[in-house]
Amino acid sequence: MTYPKPPSPATAIRRRGDCYLAACLTREILDHVFSRWGSLVLGALLERKKRYSELRDQIGGISEKMLAQTLRALERDGLIERRSFPVVPPHVEYLLTPLGRECAGRVGDLVDWIESHVRSLARAQADYDEAD
Amino acid sequence: MTYPKPPSPATAIRRRGDCYLAACLTREILDHVFSRWGSLVLGALLERKKRYSELRDQIGGISEKMLAQTLRALERDGLIERRSFPVVPPHVEYLLTPLGRECAGRVGDLVDWIESHVRSLARAQADYDEAD
Repeated sequence: MTYPKPPSPATAIRRRGDCYLAACLTREILDHVFSRWGSLVLGALLERKKRYSELRDQIGGISEKMLAQTLRALERDGLIERRSFPVVPPHVEYLLTPLGRECAGRVGDLVDWIESHVRSLARAQADYDEAD
Repeated sequence: MTYPKPPSPATAIRRRGDCYLAACLTREILDHVFSRWGSLVLGALLERKKRYSELRDQIGGISEKMLAQTLRALERDGLIERRSFPVVPPHVEYLLTPLGRECAGRVGDLVDWIESHVRSLARAQADYDEAD
């Protein structure tokens, strides 16, 4: 009777990434998801699919360039889908993929936590600055 | 009989932040938590309290400067606590505050999700690059 060989370390890394390794692919994804604009785009699409201009108007302070870059990176990661309709004027909308919905749900939880703890966080900052 | 007045918009913002407003305080916290180094530090402290050198060694690619900046920002936000012991050589350790533990739990969920979906994410990137 034979048993399957245990996976080599390389296979183990491919099966499950490690964000603490600088060279792991997950580090690149982490940079997209754990970023100011990436998190806000994913959170905004959690509500429903949106047009480019809706995202731009909802996310205060984002530039056209950063929005385009963020959308492209998240699309490449398979987290959002871009749908364009051949009409005049052009109509483009963005929505979460099933993978992106799982990810964005967790992003939304964390954004929501920050928003609902703003008073405790502000108090901590004031205490820190006073003690300085 | 009198009723309390409904909160003014300013009070409502103080009670619950809005990360989508560029000027909201939550945007600053979001930048600390939704960042490469902030997320990795919070995730690392979820296991247990750690010394500065342990964090530096665990988080691949982080510079001394970025680690020090990240720790200071998270301490100011009230998410981590710095404890220093007056011994030679100096002994400094970092741990999550109760507030930080709530936040880091959500960060850890998201990091864990990324790590366990590395294959789907890598496949999506390869498909995107091929279609280009």
